[in-house]
Amino acid sequence: MTPTSNLPALFSPRSVAVLGATAEVDRVGYNILASLLYGGFAGDIYPVHPRLGELQGLRVYPSLAAVPVPPDLAVIALNERATVAALKECGRLGVRAAVCLAGGYKETGPAGARLEAELVETAAQYGIALAGPNTLGLINTGANLYVTFYPLRLASGSVSLVSQSGGMGLTMLYKAMDEGLGIEKFVVVGNRSVLDVADYLAYLGDDPGTRAVGLFLEGVEDARRLVELAGRVNRVKPVVVYKAGEAAAAAYAALTHTGSMVGHHRLYLEACRQYGLYTVDSADRAVTALKALTTAPPAQGRRVAVVTHTAGPGIVLVDRLGAGGAVFPPLSPETEAAVKKVMGDTPPVVIKNPLDAAGLGLSPDVIGRLTAVLRADPAFDLVLVVFCQHPHWPFPSPQLASLSGSKPVVACYIATQAGVRAEQGVLAAAGVPVYNSLEAAAGAADALMWYGGRGN
Amino acid sequence: MTPTSNLPALFSPRSVAVLGATAEVDRVGYNILASLLYGGFAGDIYPVHPRLGELQGLRVYPSLAAVPVPPDLAVIALNERATVAALKECGRLGVRAAVCLAGGYKETGPAGARLEAELVETAAQYGIALAGPNTLGLINTGANLYVTFYPLRLASGSVSLVSQSGGMGLTMLYKAMDEGLGIEKFVVVGNRSVLDVADYLAYLGDDPGTRAVGLFLEGVEDARRLVELAGRVNRVKPVVVYKAGEAAAAAYAALTHTGSMVGHHRLYLEACRQYGLYTVDSADRAVTALKALTTAPPAQGRRVAVVTHTAGPGIVLVDRLGAGGAVFPPLSPETEAAVKKVMGDTPPVVIKNPLDAAGLGLSPDVIGRLTAVLRADPAFDLVLVVFCQHPHWPFPSPQLASLSGSKPVVACYIATQAGVRAEQGVLAAAGVPVYNSLEAAAGAADALMWYGGRGN
Repeated sequence: MTPTSNLPALFSPRSVAVLGATAEVDRVGYNILASLLYGGFAGDIYPVHPRLGELQGLRVYPSLAAVPVPPDLAVIALNERATVAALKECGRLGVRAAVCLAGGYKETGPAGARLEAELVETAAQYGIALAGPNTLGLINTGANLYVTFYPLRLASGSVSLVSQSGGMGLTMLYKAMDEGLGIEKFVVVGNRSVLDVADYLAYLGDDPGTRAVGLFLEGVEDARRLVELAGRVNRVKPVVVYKAGEAAAAAYAALTHTGSMVGHHRLYLEACRQYGLYTVDSADRAVTALKALTTAPPAQGRRVAVVTHTAGPGIVLVDRLGAGGAVFPPLSPETEAAVKKVMGDTPPVVIKNPLDAAGLGLSPDVIGRLTAVLRADPAFDLVLVVFCQHPHWPFPSPQLASLSGSKPVVACYIATQAGVRAEQGVLAAAGVPVYNSLEAAAGAADALMWYGGRGN
Repeated sequence: MTPTSNLPALFSPRSVAVLGATAEVDRVGYNILASLLYGGFAGDIYPVHPRLGELQGLRVYPSLAAVPVPPDLAVIALNERATVAALKECGRLGVRAAVCLAGGYKETGPAGARLEAELVETAAQYGIALAGPNTLGLINTGANLYVTFYPLRLASGSVSLVSQSGGMGLTMLYKAMDEGLGIEKFVVVGNRSVLDVADYLAYLGDDPGTRAVGLFLEGVEDARRLVELAGRVNRVKPVVVYKAGEAAAAAYAALTHTGSMVGHHRLYLEACRQYGLYTVDSADRAVTALKALTTAPPAQGRRVAVVTHTAGPGIVLVDRLGAGGAVFPPLSPETEAAVKKVMGDTPPVVIKNPLDAAGLGLSPDVIGRLTAVLRADPAFDLVLVVFCQHPHWPFPSPQLASLSGSKPVVACYIATQAGVRAEQGVLAAAGVPVYNSLEAAAGAADALMWYGGRGN
């Protein structure tokens, strides 16, 4: 076995040991256990501590050797020196996968780098799939496996995330929770001394539960290998890349974080785009794009129609999407006639694109019917719908959800976050991603147009 | 009296008549009344309808002439023709201010333009402060006056908003609600046929309740007058400008909306910056900046320190703020010594800026003390604090709120929106704006640095 061939044991273990489990609620070792339990992991969990008898209702084992059967996965919540010794014991006992949480390795200097070399050697000797060290951990919602020290429970879904930063990984997870976006797998790569971003990406590329992958990158040594691989995965499922490190000063910060040199940022982005990857410049935009790409079909071109009852947002969408190369064709005579069938022969507005139905558009039925008309027009590749929250004029969610057709519809609800959240479910189930800002909706449309045109 | 001299009657009327009040819940005339009542207006409200006896618990008057005392403000929720006749009656009866909601005027062509000219003539003849026509309406939270057909109740505060679009005005209001940002006055200018953006801005410039103004602009004919005026107001209170209309296609949409020609976008932005105005490119960024500018003191320079327990977000902040001209000076030996007093003599991390306290930073006390250390260092003009939501490691809100000093602190909580909302109050009261994304926090810091340096 090799570390990569043991990746299934890392993400789908039958049993998990927690080395360094503790009763102190503010310690990492406590929260790893809390996270496993809160997440609902159904396999065996073995807390390991030399003296404690029970933790969070679980029997505690005095050593890894005392655990009845060698666990598939060991989570090592010990300091950097003890972690090295523990990993060696894992190897001897036949543990196939490990998450090493501690920092204090190559990111802190030569002494740490020597310790890290011992980890690498041990993992290679025993073929251990080692995540980290210096990692927040990983999640597999399909197995209810939450191996991070941030107890969370996520909606399960089809988006997997690989992050070079724990904090940025959490940023994407919390944003996904607000966006109603389900997650399949999540991993923070840490120091990447055994398993690198590319190893996880290759695994997720073959993972049937993963329909799209988001990457947060600071920099890897072998950027070419990673981008080429991502390009191959991207032909089957979308890969969205958020690469940090634009400012020169960021290079220094990255160096002292996980030991990476931040690469040549612009060359990197250009290479990503050449390989058809969708690149973004924030965690929010990554989540926005991943939600669009796993909810709606891709757009077959960049011709956009907007349906709204308020003109200003239409102007803002034209601004935003126009800058990215989208076009807003006028309505054909046939479509204008169909619009008049909905709005009446002498509508009190100018019929154009963006289509501002003004007062008539306060009716969700009118919005639904206008969306159907524009969606049926072959002059458009994507329809954006904007509606403002009102206590007596309900959102047009049922109307949008009942539309049939293979052309993407993206909704923007001008509303409080809570107002939009309540509408996410019915729309997502019908293939309509809904957003809370015009910029997010424009980003979603842009991602769908990019992915639909990636072969061009 | 002139329209502008009657602005106080528009925003602070003692009594309001609603012409076109109706019992149909999905009509504008119903929702204007619902909005006034839901908002808690304490003055007299006179619904006017020829046949109804009572509406929403209020006595209905058959005509404006039948109202016992002429109201200060008439809200006219009638069609475009009936509005003209109603405004003339308002003038004859001595009504000093009017909100004309209907569209159907110059934005629809020559016939509408002729009707609009009648409104202008009537307003001039009687000196009526006329908002609109074709407007969503206005709000004055200080008077519990909610004259829009979107029943809302806002936290009162010190930010006033002037929008050339109802939809974009609502976008800013809903975002302000999510951000915990209080509003003082709000107005959608509509067709600006009597009162223009500059008239409202001049009024708000002198308004003691308004400490900052946000403008959403599509375009005005006399841009020079507006920008010069905004520059004058900006010397006393911040004016944040979001100007839409970047894409050429947007010009057409704007033309058919409220009859405005979209101006030369870039020249416009350059003029704004020359006059010291802070310009943004989204409604969210406008709200972000206004929250920062009314919560924290301005920064006296562009030297930023970051305190966090997770490195990746620090890199992203350096990226984002570095691109805008911020610098991240290293820690002085004195400050490094003070940091070691907090973190111990041999902290397991490299002490630098951004300061990643790693595991030690999971303690809110450590974050609070490190923030105090960096804030006390004269090498920094602003401190950004990043903390990730965790069930057992509380947010450092009390610690940040207890800091003293006149240097701005901006917090970014990596969390769900609900998680951040719960922390907004205590932090805002202490002068610390908190945000839910790194981009928003960076935008807030940028606004504080801009406004602090506007005289340079």
